[in-house]
Amino acid sequence: MGPETRAAPIGIFDSGLGGLTVVRAIRQALPHEDLVYLGDTARVPYGTRSAHTVLRYAQTCGEHLRQRGVKLLVVACNTVSAVALPMLRVELDIPVLGVVGPGARAGVAAAKGKRLGVLATPGTVASGAYSRAVAAEDPRVEVFAQAAPLLVPLAEEGWVSGQVPELVAARYLEPLFDAKVGALVLGCTHYPVLIDVIREQVARRCGPDVPVVDSAHALASELSELLRERELSNASTGPGRLRVLVTDRPSDFSAVARRFLGAELEESPVEAVDL
Amino acid sequence: MGPETRAAPIGIFDSGLGGLTVVRAIRQALPHEDLVYLGDTARVPYGTRSAHTVLRYAQTCGEHLRQRGVKLLVVACNTVSAVALPMLRVELDIPVLGVVGPGARAGVAAAKGKRLGVLATPGTVASGAYSRAVAAEDPRVEVFAQAAPLLVPLAEEGWVSGQVPELVAARYLEPLFDAKVGALVLGCTHYPVLIDVIREQVARRCGPDVPVVDSAHALASELSELLRERELSNASTGPGRLRVLVTDRPSDFSAVARRFLGAELEESPVEAVDL
Repeated sequence: MGPETRAAPIGIFDSGLGGLTVVRAIRQALPHEDLVYLGDTARVPYGTRSAHTVLRYAQTCGEHLRQRGVKLLVVACNTVSAVALPMLRVELDIPVLGVVGPGARAGVAAAKGKRLGVLATPGTVASGAYSRAVAAEDPRVEVFAQAAPLLVPLAEEGWVSGQVPELVAARYLEPLFDAKVGALVLGCTHYPVLIDVIREQVARRCGPDVPVVDSAHALASELSELLRERELSNASTGPGRLRVLVTDRPSDFSAVARRFLGAELEESPVEAVDL
Repeated sequence: MGPETRAAPIGIFDSGLGGLTVVRAIRQALPHEDLVYLGDTARVPYGTRSAHTVLRYAQTCGEHLRQRGVKLLVVACNTVSAVALPMLRVELDIPVLGVVGPGARAGVAAAKGKRLGVLATPGTVASGAYSRAVAAEDPRVEVFAQAAPLLVPLAEEGWVSGQVPELVAARYLEPLFDAKVGALVLGCTHYPVLIDVIREQVARRCGPDVPVVDSAHALASELSELLRERELSNASTGPGRLRVLVTDRPSDFSAVARRFLGAELEESPVEAVDL
């Protein structure tokens, strides 16, 4: 690849702001890469839309990032990853990486032949996306998926420690303990914000040998490998820049963004785009 | 009004299934009326959409119910009530009743000159709809509105008693206690499902003289009066029928519908409509 392509930013697309946890993991793994994040906050959540509608939204957002010259597209949204990756790969002439595949692969490795637990939104559980991705990796591994709808508003509210998140996490984890899972995959971009509480509840009930796999970190690690393999890594040694685009700016944007990104957005220009 | 108009059903429109708590209150107050409920489950939630989009959705749904021959339209959705009532009143040639006005009026009466607390979704709080409606009723009454985003998923999950809803309700009510409100209005159709927990927490912290006003009951009572005044009451003495229309059927439809309606939907045909 030529130096121009290598210096181009990586595009990251999500239905809302949850995908900023993926940005956080990518920045840790690839500190020299420039990133452009597009959150379709005007049309969030995608989980309740028809597959046809999700495809249309994904195409619009993917095309917008492509026109901004990104060298690679990361789909941080589980719903889009479940239905739109093949379409995006055909429509766009750049590599496209979803969040479900890396999470499933890291989960299978961590479960060591045991059942794999997945904590996700009701939409992702109903889509069967993780079951299919795990079956593609190793058809012998059984998936036990648990919908956990309260974890998203807890993460957005910033209630990430104390009695409420502990009780909620414990309740959702109960069927997973009973199913004797060997590892747990966090199958929603919001959940890494709650990873300490989830890890603590898993450790308390199952002992310390049931690992909790964060899909965002699994994705960041596959992304690093892909950039190396395809010679797409940015040769710069300075800190990468982050640019954030939103289709609508929620009133509590800064607080939520800070929580998910784990850093201030001050250095990052936030721009509203009309799609 | 002629006997044909009087025998026509009342239309009730909501962005999702939360409005079934309004249906429940209307059935208690007006057991002989036939009801047609339309839940726009394919496009829920409205709270995050632009006013322009909400107007468009409201027009489509209102027109659909009008074509089904309803004699009156109840807007159970707080978001639609906040922005689309004037438009619906112009576009449709039937009376249109929103949920915000009756809740605000009942709240002002209950607060007896003290500050009025409102518990609502972030969208409804940001819209200022209750503050405007209270000011129209009595400009001297101060409104203290508190956003409570976790109450909707708690109601939808059916976590309506025990430690989790108690702790969550107590936390949201804290600033309202500090503000020394004289009454509390539940400004979201989902909240009546949690009214026992909310009443208990209010009573525990403020004593038994801070009433909790359910907007759905306030609306049902204004509706009864309107039907009498305009001679629109159904003359039938048999039990009214309920018909439920949805634009998309969620996988857990029956459980959620039962929880919000407080009754089985077996007798009620559920029909999917494409809008």
